[in-house]
Amino acid sequence: MDQTDKMQNHIIRSRLDALRILMKQKQIDFYLVPTGDDHQSEYIGDHYKAREYLSGFTGSAGTLLVSAEMAGLWTDGRYFIQAEKELEGTSIELFRMQEDGVPGLTEYLAGQVWDGATIGFDGRVVSAAFQKGLLHAMPKIIQICSDVDLADQVWTDRPDRSADQIYPLEKSLSGMDTAAKLGMLRKCIDEMTADAVLLSTLDDIMWLYNLRGNDVLYTPVALTFAYITKESAWLFAEKSAVPEETNRYLTTNKITLESYDQIYEFLMKVHQERKKKLLLDTAAVSLTLYEAAAAGHEIIDLPNYRLIPKAVKNQTELELCRNYHLADAVAVTKLICWLKTHPDISEETELSVADRLEGYRKQQKGYTEPSFETIAAFGEHAAMIHFTADTETNAVLRREGMLLLDSGGQYVGATTDITRTIVLGNLTDEQKQQYTAVACGMLKLANTEFLYGCTGRNLDILAREPLWKLGLDYRHGTGHGVGSFLSVHEGPQAFRWKMSETQPEVVLEPGMIITDEPGIYIEGSHGIRIENELLCIEKRANEWGRFLGFEVLTHVPIDLDAILPEQMSDECKKMLNVYHTEVYELLCPYLTDNEQKWLFTQTREI
Amino acid sequence: MDQTDKMQNHIIRSRLDALRILMKQKQIDFYLVPTGDDHQSEYIGDHYKAREYLSGFTGSAGTLLVSAEMAGLWTDGRYFIQAEKELEGTSIELFRMQEDGVPGLTEYLAGQVWDGATIGFDGRVVSAAFQKGLLHAMPKIIQICSDVDLADQVWTDRPDRSADQIYPLEKSLSGMDTAAKLGMLRKCIDEMTADAVLLSTLDDIMWLYNLRGNDVLYTPVALTFAYITKESAWLFAEKSAVPEETNRYLTTNKITLESYDQIYEFLMKVHQERKKKLLLDTAAVSLTLYEAAAAGHEIIDLPNYRLIPKAVKNQTELELCRNYHLADAVAVTKLICWLKTHPDISEETELSVADRLEGYRKQQKGYTEPSFETIAAFGEHAAMIHFTADTETNAVLRREGMLLLDSGGQYVGATTDITRTIVLGNLTDEQKQQYTAVACGMLKLANTEFLYGCTGRNLDILAREPLWKLGLDYRHGTGHGVGSFLSVHEGPQAFRWKMSETQPEVVLEPGMIITDEPGIYIEGSHGIRIENELLCIEKRANEWGRFLGFEVLTHVPIDLDAILPEQMSDECKKMLNVYHTEVYELLCPYLTDNEQKWLFTQTREI
Repeated sequence: MDQTDKMQNHIIRSRLDALRILMKQKQIDFYLVPTGDDHQSEYIGDHYKAREYLSGFTGSAGTLLVSAEMAGLWTDGRYFIQAEKELEGTSIELFRMQEDGVPGLTEYLAGQVWDGATIGFDGRVVSAAFQKGLLHAMPKIIQICSDVDLADQVWTDRPDRSADQIYPLEKSLSGMDTAAKLGMLRKCIDEMTADAVLLSTLDDIMWLYNLRGNDVLYTPVALTFAYITKESAWLFAEKSAVPEETNRYLTTNKITLESYDQIYEFLMKVHQERKKKLLLDTAAVSLTLYEAAAAGHEIIDLPNYRLIPKAVKNQTELELCRNYHLADAVAVTKLICWLKTHPDISEETELSVADRLEGYRKQQKGYTEPSFETIAAFGEHAAMIHFTADTETNAVLRREGMLLLDSGGQYVGATTDITRTIVLGNLTDEQKQQYTAVACGMLKLANTEFLYGCTGRNLDILAREPLWKLGLDYRHGTGHGVGSFLSVHEGPQAFRWKMSETQPEVVLEPGMIITDEPGIYIEGSHGIRIENELLCIEKRANEWGRFLGFEVLTHVPIDLDAILPEQMSDECKKMLNVYHTEVYELLCPYLTDNEQKWLFTQTREI
Repeated sequence: MDQTDKMQNHIIRSRLDALRILMKQKQIDFYLVPTGDDHQSEYIGDHYKAREYLSGFTGSAGTLLVSAEMAGLWTDGRYFIQAEKELEGTSIELFRMQEDGVPGLTEYLAGQVWDGATIGFDGRVVSAAFQKGLLHAMPKIIQICSDVDLADQVWTDRPDRSADQIYPLEKSLSGMDTAAKLGMLRKCIDEMTADAVLLSTLDDIMWLYNLRGNDVLYTPVALTFAYITKESAWLFAEKSAVPEETNRYLTTNKITLESYDQIYEFLMKVHQERKKKLLLDTAAVSLTLYEAAAAGHEIIDLPNYRLIPKAVKNQTELELCRNYHLADAVAVTKLICWLKTHPDISEETELSVADRLEGYRKQQKGYTEPSFETIAAFGEHAAMIHFTADTETNAVLRREGMLLLDSGGQYVGATTDITRTIVLGNLTDEQKQQYTAVACGMLKLANTEFLYGCTGRNLDILAREPLWKLGLDYRHGTGHGVGSFLSVHEGPQAFRWKMSETQPEVVLEPGMIITDEPGIYIEGSHGIRIENELLCIEKRANEWGRFLGFEVLTHVPIDLDAILPEQMSDECKKMLNVYHTEVYELLCPYLTDNEQKWLFTQTREI
């Protein structure tokens, strides 16, 4: 441990001490600091990184528990090594989630609490379901204190909540004006015989009001809440984030602007005369928001996707999507060409590849930022599904094995997500066999046709079966929805095979975009994943019903250096050849002569 | 209409008149006569055919509604033609279920009832759920009278309820003695913190007590009820049906015998001191039974398959299953050989083929009866999924098109179900294309490997996709469970793709038997179905999990005269060739020289 680490540990210990003094004042016996914001966002802003501030652990997932006697951090397998290192010497114990013999957070708490013990947390960053589960699991009668943000008092130099400029999205980008969207929503309100809707998920609000912002990393959204009745609509946002143009736009669309912090008071007071029926998604709102809403409303629980049909893209969104996917494919293909053909990559690292890719994307018109943190994972790093390099782990590339590159871009009008696994040197036969199976699975799913009514659970096996037949599997879903210049992970559609009580199983609808990304991960050795985005489309309708299929949105070559044609059926070979012909034809106009020549070989018929 | 028809119509009208007099006496405004017995059996005995007696309609499904002004019969598409003919002149109106503009029975009733109207039916032949649904759907406040069997009073020469001899099944056939099965069941009772179990589904009772009988067509079961507590067990059966040997067997196993009709009184009185917790499957018991049980118990609703694990076969059952499947395959293959090679089939009809097949089955040791009514459907008849020939529809075979033959046998220790579509003459290219797609689907499903946790909904697409890619579909599930010398349709496992709120979705377990029977049905032209039975087995276990697959139980050639090898992938061709090699090797020892020669060609490599 060097001097800097010692200093850091000292700082963490004193922050915990300060927290414990506040806990004692407030008579809180156990204080929880989860990782979240007021909107259940996948990525959170610096203002919300209280768990990181108090524990020193910088991973994107984890919960800190502090009592008078102990401090513990619960995180998952992605972060065990990082957390171990970062927590060393801080007095915080690491609890490896899902490991045998390691109690979960709730289980641990259940063993510690006594009758009358008080558990505290900031109710704005946990869900109503979290509190319910916690109370249910405790063997003693405990108190909950959810209206405190103790971290805020310890964190003297806490960054302000981001309040970047909010701007309207033109109809040429959204494809549907706000009045029409509000009309659809109000029809839902009517159908549910309800009075109002409360939204706190940022992408839903941005979609509905045709707004965008810049408050959350990787996602063009603004920190806001929305409340809509049959006659009126409100937007709760930091007023400084709303410039004159946006203000005019809101006025034109009869959306009343209120301060971000006013939402709680508003909810309690909005219908003082009689309780109105409020539609909200209990899985998506925070505990504090739920309680404020419940104080003034009769709550009807409804998943947001039933109210906000953003998963089904309109023609404008699809046209933008196709165009930007092509631009994105050009950037990724240029990067792959460079990697495959550059005489010397010995100076190149995982991080520099990510930067170089970002450079190619920046050359594309409309590009704004990555849609998530690029995964550039060389060799055995790729076996860690969520690996992202940092300055310490950053591997130098060599002409051997493979580089897994999973990345995406935000473009003004579209969001992309693509994975290619690039062969840099010799592979074993087994690696090629696995690569071929992954490619076949990806292609088989993309090329299927199915009757309307199928869900992702019906189709998942098409991608997975080639691996299952080899006795292999990947421990993640096969695909997720993608937003339109919004979140890169967007529900409700998904390709997965397991039954789930918490995840909805929804019918695939034409206009939905969904990724197709089978893979294989061999610990300590290598990882392979190939990902295209698919658009669900109508194929034909006849006496048997409506047949749907997919249009492939992603056009980047699949590395033939790892493909074993003899392992593929004629059908699969044809699928790959057809795909590569399209890739070549679409990308050529945007490539240099050398790149074109290279691509010609890379997309040759097998 | 001939003289006999006129006489029959007169009889039906006078039966309805008699029913209406009774209805008036009992102040019943609408009387319902469904098709069912006290056990929700798939096939019902003659004693229970009240609907047929009162309406003259002989189909296996339908409900009769009688009021002072009208009489109507609701049945499904399988029976429209037959019902139209049989109801002509009876004054009974035919309601074609699922047809546009035709109200369902409940919908129709909802439009007819008035405040205070009384709807009557025999509560022993409808489910508790039926009454609930009925009450829910009525727009007026109605009365229900469910303790009447008016048909019984009209039906003067009603056959007695069957009470054939009940006999115990040796352990060499059941594989598990009754004490062990009761032990398992009592463990379930404990786990559910309940006191007792009530069973009325006959195959569950037969499995649990290792008994068989002969009261229901096609199924070796006896009309019984069972009630089991942690200490005691009861069988309710017609005492005349229990011979001395069976009586001794029951005594040895500490099963108390009570009269069949005593069950209702028993349920109300068994725990007079305090209400005990009773496990029962509300979807499986009759309304009358449910009400009797509820009078003396606190009811815990649990599907029977959670208590009676008969779907997972034991080693003894599987060995018998394999042996009898081979015997059955010999019978079916001999029939196919005869049909394909006999110089003159112009005297042969759909019914005579069924008889001839029965003849071959009777030559097999252990055969007792068909496991369901044989479907022998020639040409366009095969487009009707549930077609069974009668003396009027019975088609004479010709050397053209195809014969669909779906049949099965009960053997002392196993139940079989197999479909082959046999080419009798020239086919169109389209027919061959469809036949090949059906065969490929059947083979792909049979040859898959999958992780433990998959249900039939995950796998169904493997059989269906080859047809979906041609823009075709079949409007039935791909497969159902099969009993061990019990019902040919047995839950809970199934291959199907649609989500269902009423059908359970259960994980496939090693030891489950399930049919694999894709098809295609072109109205007015032809029908194709190919069905093998599959046994779910362990394939391998490794770091990724337990991989399961299927062992094929059915070994009968698939007609190569309809197969287009050029339409099949190499993988599919290999599956078919491997299957045919097995068929040839397994069946040869049981065939004549000529049959062997024929089979050699029929199972040639493609």
